[in-house]
Amino acid sequence: MLNGVKINIKLIVRFIGFLLIVEGFFMFLGIPFSLYYCGNNCNSLLISGLITSFSGLILLLSTRKNYNKNIGKREGYIIVTFSWIIISLFGTLPFLISGAIPDFTNAFFETISGFTTTGASILNDIESLPKGILFWRSITHWIGGMGIIVLSIAILPVLGIGGMQLYAAEMPGPVPDKLHPRITQTAKRLWGIYIILTFVETGLLLLGNMSLFDALCHAFGTMATGGFSTQNTSVAGYSPYIQYVIIVFMIFAGTNFTLHYLALHGKLKKVWQNEEFRYYIYLIFLVSLIITISLIILSNQSFERAIRESLFQVISIVTTTGYVTANYLSWPGLLWMIIFLLMFIGGCAGSTGGGIKVLRQLLLFKNSGMELKRLIHPKAIIPVKYNSKTVSQDIIFKIMAFFLIYIIIFAFGTFVMSLLGLDFETAIGSTAATLGNIGPGLGNVGPEGNYANIPEFGKWFLSFLMLLGRLELFTVLILLSPAFWRK
Amino acid sequence: MLNGVKINIKLIVRFIGFLLIVEGFFMFLGIPFSLYYCGNNCNSLLISGLITSFSGLILLLSTRKNYNKNIGKREGYIIVTFSWIIISLFGTLPFLISGAIPDFTNAFFETISGFTTTGASILNDIESLPKGILFWRSITHWIGGMGIIVLSIAILPVLGIGGMQLYAAEMPGPVPDKLHPRITQTAKRLWGIYIILTFVETGLLLLGNMSLFDALCHAFGTMATGGFSTQNTSVAGYSPYIQYVIIVFMIFAGTNFTLHYLALHGKLKKVWQNEEFRYYIYLIFLVSLIITISLIILSNQSFERAIRESLFQVISIVTTTGYVTANYLSWPGLLWMIIFLLMFIGGCAGSTGGGIKVLRQLLLFKNSGMELKRLIHPKAIIPVKYNSKTVSQDIIFKIMAFFLIYIIIFAFGTFVMSLLGLDFETAIGSTAATLGNIGPGLGNVGPEGNYANIPEFGKWFLSFLMLLGRLELFTVLILLSPAFWRK
Repeated sequence: MLNGVKINIKLIVRFIGFLLIVEGFFMFLGIPFSLYYCGNNCNSLLISGLITSFSGLILLLSTRKNYNKNIGKREGYIIVTFSWIIISLFGTLPFLISGAIPDFTNAFFETISGFTTTGASILNDIESLPKGILFWRSITHWIGGMGIIVLSIAILPVLGIGGMQLYAAEMPGPVPDKLHPRITQTAKRLWGIYIILTFVETGLLLLGNMSLFDALCHAFGTMATGGFSTQNTSVAGYSPYIQYVIIVFMIFAGTNFTLHYLALHGKLKKVWQNEEFRYYIYLIFLVSLIITISLIILSNQSFERAIRESLFQVISIVTTTGYVTANYLSWPGLLWMIIFLLMFIGGCAGSTGGGIKVLRQLLLFKNSGMELKRLIHPKAIIPVKYNSKTVSQDIIFKIMAFFLIYIIIFAFGTFVMSLLGLDFETAIGSTAATLGNIGPGLGNVGPEGNYANIPEFGKWFLSFLMLLGRLELFTVLILLSPAFWRK
Repeated sequence: MLNGVKINIKLIVRFIGFLLIVEGFFMFLGIPFSLYYCGNNCNSLLISGLITSFSGLILLLSTRKNYNKNIGKREGYIIVTFSWIIISLFGTLPFLISGAIPDFTNAFFETISGFTTTGASILNDIESLPKGILFWRSITHWIGGMGIIVLSIAILPVLGIGGMQLYAAEMPGPVPDKLHPRITQTAKRLWGIYIILTFVETGLLLLGNMSLFDALCHAFGTMATGGFSTQNTSVAGYSPYIQYVIIVFMIFAGTNFTLHYLALHGKLKKVWQNEEFRYYIYLIFLVSLIITISLIILSNQSFERAIRESLFQVISIVTTTGYVTANYLSWPGLLWMIIFLLMFIGGCAGSTGGGIKVLRQLLLFKNSGMELKRLIHPKAIIPVKYNSKTVSQDIIFKIMAFFLIYIIIFAFGTFVMSLLGLDFETAIGSTAATLGNIGPGLGNVGPEGNYANIPEFGKWFLSFLMLLGRLELFTVLILLSPAFWRK
């Protein structure tokens, strides 16, 4: 079709049509809240849902004849990237129709921030929005999270993206093809876990006297490692109990979902044998300990509050959730520097967390140590081991390339944001926080700021970074490569 | 000896003894200036030189019997790192004895900054120092530069450090073993070029009405890509002519010295066929153009001054020299952000410049592009090409590992400097500027600041970073690895 490549466009269109019908259905889910709390725009979700589902239906019907069921890698890449873009485009409808976010750029930024589970917001007064719209805003996270789990565990390994195949090939226990050979079966099982965890969290939040509406929205934001709250002060205004519940579920959300599957089947020992998981837990507790001690000494805080604030902020940033209970920018310089460095960690592979991912960092650290040994013994073959198995040089190579491209994009992004006249900290913080799908960054986009005052072009650019980060860079970059479109 | 490894310590001691004798000789070279401009401490260079040479002589004499002439890689690593440390220790003598820098930490920082050709200074009032001492300070650069050329072109490729072997194996024209099989011969030829360029620059500076003293000191600082000046305002106070001379010679100093050898033999076409050199030149002129236009538009500067200032600052940072004629921190935020990013480029491989090096960046960029192609055609072998030759995956792998470790050390360094209570910009700037052997950084260590107020521990830490950066990381890191000391 395009320059001679045969792309199964009909199938891609059918898939996106199907997604839009699902998206429309999710829009309807907010209608009860819309009616219950009804303010001005009770019908916007209904109208948006109808437009979205109907568009999907048209796409499905218009391609129902003579389509080819064969799907190749090329179609895979196109479907993944375009799915996120198109559901984000339709996802702006509730914001636009209700007038909650009248500007298209802002509405798109907020929606793609939702679907990529970033949680960066342009809203100055979140609480002024109709409840139905806020429900839609939070559920975009949850839909995005569903997509990501399946993407990272079932689809990307097949597409061979950035070392994720390691994760498929070397994971102990139920790797995708052992869970079930078919992607749909894998998806169902992982979604089952995702849904269970979301409902358990909702229940626990209800026990803490949250309203059903707030409990659901925060459970969506937590499990997807998203970070949209229904409150202007994020989670800071809630009780310590609620904050602890969210702390625990952020850890869950940042964990590889196949480990949850193992845990649910009683194989806790196997979970703890997973090197990535152990590294992730050690990292969280070590850094939290350092920050707790510093806060007690430097800021004279109470013991419990220092523990809670440091755990919450550290876990929120490492898992790329982005909820906050304290403004880390008001901490001593060293502590927010630590928080900034954590922005480059990201959740575990196969979790809903974004960023570089713990697995990649772990393997890169291991390989860096091995490099020295290789210099000492240039003729010996010294492989990196992960979970007691040898990791091929080829995978390490791909992971290094991923890391490098991540750093190049980060540097380039900071440069572009500076070009728009932002100060150094805002430029560096907004780039790190969107590329890593975190949400709050540094400077004007810190925990007490938002993205409202970023210039128009900057919002589109950061939206692109969110997509890039969320889809593990290569999935998007490959579409920009001319070679992709040639035979 | 140590845990059972047989290390030829006698030979190492002999080599260092020899170096100390040479170092003492270089100390004597400043005596004429000491006498001519004599102030308080005319004898400090004489005394330091005698102590240094005499120490060297003792080392040589005490090891003259029964030593084994066999030198292995292990000895190579030890000699390289210890040479830089020990000549820096003895190099503090003129500062300490003259009382010009009475504090040992400061004296060591200034000396290792000289020998690593960094140019970071703790001096608040450079011009108040005796001329003989300033001459010694500048000549430390020049000695360091001599060491680096031989190290990078003749020694590191043999030790297999971070992709430098590519450079030995794939360079068109006179690679070490083609120049002459023996390292000493290679060294002599490259030093010949280094000395010729230094004298030509000195002559041209004299024509610009510089004193012989200033001309020599600035030629030393330029050719070594060092950056120590004899003036408090660096090169800003000199005429445009002098600034242009230094611009041209900074470019020469940042160029691979084997290309100078080719050029001197009339093979200019071959020089231009070198991809690294072309990339280096294009980069310098493209970035300078952007900054020139911005300075004209934003700062309303005259045309000639804008060109000169942007060329000077860009070339000074890219080549890691560190001379300044304008305070880039007073430029619009975007422009000093560009300067900051340039701190990660570094000179060409085989030049006296530090940093990551143009060659590595070029190959990493090429490989990043290839990664996408490899995803599209997973079964095809798609190699990176450099100067029309295939670069092995193994070398790309080593270069990626180098880059990664550089970034990890940079992040860790910024963290350590923050830990000492420095603000974000000073922490990030001091780390980048010392690890990259540049000199001026950001914040308090910018072009108009210096390193005087860095805490004591920070000065030792930054000294370590200078050494680490200068010796291509692995040379130093390998000594810290327990495996190195095991059989």
